[in-house]
Amino acid sequence: MPELQIFCSLSVEGDALKLLQEGARPHKLIFSQKAGKSILVQTGSDPAFAGVDVAVGQPDVGDVLASTRLRWVHLTSAGYTRYDTSEFRAAAKAKGIQVTNSSMVYTEPCAEQILSFMLGQARLLPQSLGVQCDNTTSEWARIRYSLRCLQHKSVVILGFGSIGIRLIELLAPFQMKITAVRRQAKGDEGVSIVSPDDCQKALAEADHVVNILPDNPASRHFMSADRFGWMKPGAMFYNIGRGTTVDQHALVAVLKSGHLGAAWLDVTDPEPLPVGHPLLSAPNCFITPHTGGGHQNEPESLVRHFLENLQRFVKDSPLLDRIM
Amino acid sequence: MPELQIFCSLSVEGDALKLLQEGARPHKLIFSQKAGKSILVQTGSDPAFAGVDVAVGQPDVGDVLASTRLRWVHLTSAGYTRYDTSEFRAAAKAKGIQVTNSSMVYTEPCAEQILSFMLGQARLLPQSLGVQCDNTTSEWARIRYSLRCLQHKSVVILGFGSIGIRLIELLAPFQMKITAVRRQAKGDEGVSIVSPDDCQKALAEADHVVNILPDNPASRHFMSADRFGWMKPGAMFYNIGRGTTVDQHALVAVLKSGHLGAAWLDVTDPEPLPVGHPLLSAPNCFITPHTGGGHQNEPESLVRHFLENLQRFVKDSPLLDRIM
Repeated sequence: MPELQIFCSLSVEGDALKLLQEGARPHKLIFSQKAGKSILVQTGSDPAFAGVDVAVGQPDVGDVLASTRLRWVHLTSAGYTRYDTSEFRAAAKAKGIQVTNSSMVYTEPCAEQILSFMLGQARLLPQSLGVQCDNTTSEWARIRYSLRCLQHKSVVILGFGSIGIRLIELLAPFQMKITAVRRQAKGDEGVSIVSPDDCQKALAEADHVVNILPDNPASRHFMSADRFGWMKPGAMFYNIGRGTTVDQHALVAVLKSGHLGAAWLDVTDPEPLPVGHPLLSAPNCFITPHTGGGHQNEPESLVRHFLENLQRFVKDSPLLDRIM
Repeated sequence: MPELQIFCSLSVEGDALKLLQEGARPHKLIFSQKAGKSILVQTGSDPAFAGVDVAVGQPDVGDVLASTRLRWVHLTSAGYTRYDTSEFRAAAKAKGIQVTNSSMVYTEPCAEQILSFMLGQARLLPQSLGVQCDNTTSEWARIRYSLRCLQHKSVVILGFGSIGIRLIELLAPFQMKITAVRRQAKGDEGVSIVSPDDCQKALAEADHVVNILPDNPASRHFMSADRFGWMKPGAMFYNIGRGTTVDQHALVAVLKSGHLGAAWLDVTDPEPLPVGHPLLSAPNCFITPHTGGGHQNEPESLVRHFLENLQRFVKDSPLLDRIM
């Protein structure tokens, strides 16, 4: 295969840049002058895009649609809402462009983030960190006898992708009753599967509901007032998918009423939430700033994942994390 | 076996009391008038103690030593420092008194508490909860790229009792390199074992050091300035054993110098720490108020564990959690 022209619409520096430059040889890297400050921010349209074979990063949708030579787009994120349109899918198919994302890079940190939320809630870390009190005080007793264990509890996981699969592995030693919500059960999931339209009973029985749904028209406000209402009183809700999959007004209501025990959110709609948003002051609502996928050397991990796929692309082998 | 006289030096009420009263029939429960406010606090000497067959709770050491008919003491805690003296052991042996504790009741919550600490640190929950910032800000990047995963990291566990064994189960999916420090390797531990005198290399290689040591003369200040100094720069330290097993001055020093990445402590010496204690303001030091073993229905769990042992005692079967 001749040298490839690789359009890089991602902002990397230092070790990650060196890794990319060395690993991509002998192919030619063309760095966008319009790369976003974050590796997750879309690049603006760039004239340098014309004529490239491969694009890595968050390329401009219009640039991809207008491309003539492009054969592969590798996205440096797990989410791909802006590319997930019928127009884009049709264009990719017609032009023979493969599209991959970086889901595998985020699987482990996201799964560990969810478990940190579940255990942080069970062990009431926000309420007990920094508290210094004697074990004869009512303050101590209030914390101590409110703590819980995950063992033997039940959990519903909304979405059965790589993060859900990894979470199920991490939860295995806790001997929980695990149910996953998936559009089509394949039979090889190893846990109970229910369809999105048939999850009322599972939600009603779960001590924990973990939302890992991606953003798409079918998932928008999936966690509606009805579905929150079906949840068991005092149950816990966690969201590491996308903020748009939750009816946030309904969530505020079930937190305020005390119907939900707590909500832990790594994603909201919008991000960040505007000052004064009712979720920020809702009781037992714990929010992190969309850091679930983060990890030390994240840029290097993204570059390594791309380079692995580049080797596969050159050899015409199946690409990892192919989404289109 | 005739009816037993059971001295109850524990403060239980409501469902737990009902459970105890019903489960202990036909034996006679004699409730101490001097039970502590907490189920973990020692009862004062009580004249009602004389002539009982069994004592459950935290009975007065002098009462046990002076007893003539007593055959079994069941402690409602995992720790038993005040009973762990050569005088007490000798008396128990001479008088034929079996001593059990409630270790099994605390195994799961303590193991889950440790994992909540490890994941809370890896995912930087104290630093990121409540932070609302845009993903183009340096504040966001500072958190996001400082996050870690436990997967494939190394951990040293000081103490190989039931909590350590359960922690090893919970950590299994993380594919960590696990080493436990144990006085005598039995060969059936399933992880690498090193002796306390031979743990320098293990400490130097570990990303995480988990202290589950009980309090006894051999464990006092086990985590000394030397051992903290051997730890890998940036490594994390967790203590859910007893505060006395740590040289707290040395811990403050390695936190202040930045040699340690962080310390998460559920136990300190004393508890609570006095206002102004340097650990309270040491950087990256996160403290909970000895709530590690806590869980909803803890009094019921303790009562159930005692009743299970009572059935065994009546049948002359081996008691659970026997310590002497």
